[in-house]
Amino acid sequence: MRETPIDAPVIAVDAMGGDEGLAVMLAGVARARRSHPGTRFLLVGDEPAILAGLKKHPNLSQASEVVHAPGVVESSEKPTQAIRRAKTTSMGIAIDLVKQGHAAAAVSAGNTGALMAMAKIALRMLPGIDRPALAALLPTLGDNDVVMLDLGANTECDARNLVQFAVMGAAYARTALDLARPRVALLNIGTEDQKGTDEIREAAATLKDAAADRLPIDFIGFVEGDRLASGEVDVIVCDGFSGNIALKTAEGTARFVADLLKRAFRSSARSKLGFLISRPATQLLRDHLDPNNHNGAIFLGLGGIVVKSHGSANELGVATAIGAAAKMVRDDLTRRIAADLAGVAVAAVPVRGAA
Amino acid sequence: MRETPIDAPVIAVDAMGGDEGLAVMLAGVARARRSHPGTRFLLVGDEPAILAGLKKHPNLSQASEVVHAPGVVESSEKPTQAIRRAKTTSMGIAIDLVKQGHAAAAVSAGNTGALMAMAKIALRMLPGIDRPALAALLPTLGDNDVVMLDLGANTECDARNLVQFAVMGAAYARTALDLARPRVALLNIGTEDQKGTDEIREAAATLKDAAADRLPIDFIGFVEGDRLASGEVDVIVCDGFSGNIALKTAEGTARFVADLLKRAFRSSARSKLGFLISRPATQLLRDHLDPNNHNGAIFLGLGGIVVKSHGSANELGVATAIGAAAKMVRDDLTRRIAADLAGVAVAAVPVRGAA
Repeated sequence: MRETPIDAPVIAVDAMGGDEGLAVMLAGVARARRSHPGTRFLLVGDEPAILAGLKKHPNLSQASEVVHAPGVVESSEKPTQAIRRAKTTSMGIAIDLVKQGHAAAAVSAGNTGALMAMAKIALRMLPGIDRPALAALLPTLGDNDVVMLDLGANTECDARNLVQFAVMGAAYARTALDLARPRVALLNIGTEDQKGTDEIREAAATLKDAAADRLPIDFIGFVEGDRLASGEVDVIVCDGFSGNIALKTAEGTARFVADLLKRAFRSSARSKLGFLISRPATQLLRDHLDPNNHNGAIFLGLGGIVVKSHGSANELGVATAIGAAAKMVRDDLTRRIAADLAGVAVAAVPVRGAA
Repeated sequence: MRETPIDAPVIAVDAMGGDEGLAVMLAGVARARRSHPGTRFLLVGDEPAILAGLKKHPNLSQASEVVHAPGVVESSEKPTQAIRRAKTTSMGIAIDLVKQGHAAAAVSAGNTGALMAMAKIALRMLPGIDRPALAALLPTLGDNDVVMLDLGANTECDARNLVQFAVMGAAYARTALDLARPRVALLNIGTEDQKGTDEIREAAATLKDAAADRLPIDFIGFVEGDRLASGEVDVIVCDGFSGNIALKTAEGTARFVADLLKRAFRSSARSKLGFLISRPATQLLRDHLDPNNHNGAIFLGLGGIVVKSHGSANELGVATAIGAAAKMVRDDLTRRIAADLAGVAVAAVPVRGAA
């Protein structure tokens, strides 16, 4: 793998992924360029369309090269199909640019399953890790964000997967949040030992032993869905199904409450006046809760940085995801996580009940 | 089973369940009595303690009988243990009062797993249903609440369970929400056909066929976590693990947003002023979002009404759960759901891929 400089990141962008179309992707990249000067971009996709779109973004043109890809991974495409077309699709080529060392990170808003499958083949897993997990930093009421994983890469997980996610999530928290000994919990439907599935209980038993013994984590057991944003945990570990349900439910509920608040403010002349007066404060809250300000999840466990942007991200959301990728490159994330994993000898953690 | 009149409900209350203690339970029952005059209560638990507590609630005393139970089901107790002690615990005796026909419904804030296991044995399942599911009505932006199930009774579910939950949830929506043909969806991590677990895909295929053929439902496929409160669905079906995670995440997020809003309003003199002016409107919103105003989930599929109150419910929450039970009795819910299930011949719905 060729090395790209970490202080001047080169980021490969799957310009054709995402529900909002090429124009929104390019506007997002242009916005990211303004906030992250020095970053360069490889824009992967239909070359004539990208060149036409770039006419609106002359500054981005100067910081970019266009890499033609004739095909696009469809949102309904199965990972196995997508893998066969990896050499001709914008997503596949963006990942390959990381593999070849031409880019330090790839960003795509396309099909999550296909992105993971192709990234896993191209970039390989870090030693001791069986499967990548999709992780994101989410806002809390506490002093720092919380790392949550898996957010949808692995629909079903065994105890061994969950233990590895915990170790990777903790490594990410040590790097991204600068925490020496992150507090790690498993998402469950109760806090008592006997709650949940066999997989979760086995993972808990393993993490409890390993935390006491060799892992630099503070394992605090189970956490329920109502404590995700409480700030009492730094890393929340779950299977990809539960994680995706929880993440989207949180997004939907935040929007629901915001909509109800809007209705409440509109309900009388008096409340309208109150709204106008307190608007600067509620606007800050609105920005804080906008998922586009928290966009950009990373596939942890890979030998390279691949960032998933939300399919429906707007220009701000795309820029946030690209900014997250640039920060991960500057943080030298892959190398630091690999070193961290080597230090804790994750492969040597015996998982109770695992086959 | 002896019959109790549906227009003057008798409700058995497990007075010892709940994290907040007997005093909160009794205050909640007293509050429910005020809003539901004509309702009578069988208060089950430690007789001396209940009689002492009732001194503060003379009106409730006149509408209640105390039924002594020497034991209490612990929150960490396994269902199998709880079943063995059913005849001596407040939860077990409350359920038995429904079985014997002395009460039309039982309400408990205790251990969910134990409550379900004991209720299943005492009250039996309705024909065609294998397992009860915990269902609740949740607020939406639409014209009516949404029925969501299972919320935690069954940690793991197969396709057959999910199909039965859909049929029961629709029957509940027809009765409680007065909808002739409820829109039913399965909770999933994407809306495309290939998304999710085998169980969910099989349940979807079965419901699609059955809805076109004989079931009086409008099956709309998969719904993601961010659409739960959108009002575009009347019944959301999931396994108990995902349902519990989603419900608690929604509760936690609503509280998180409310806390952030409070901080925002306090952030400057100007926003404090705006808050004071718009307070009546935000207070309405706060009430609307308070989980205590939506407390009381029902175990669907049983031959009797058993309502689960949240363990941490306050006085208002307990009163809401008891009010929900009283309404279910007045609605003749069990009989109507049984008739509805008989009409759709749920047992005859062939589940694809089921063993």
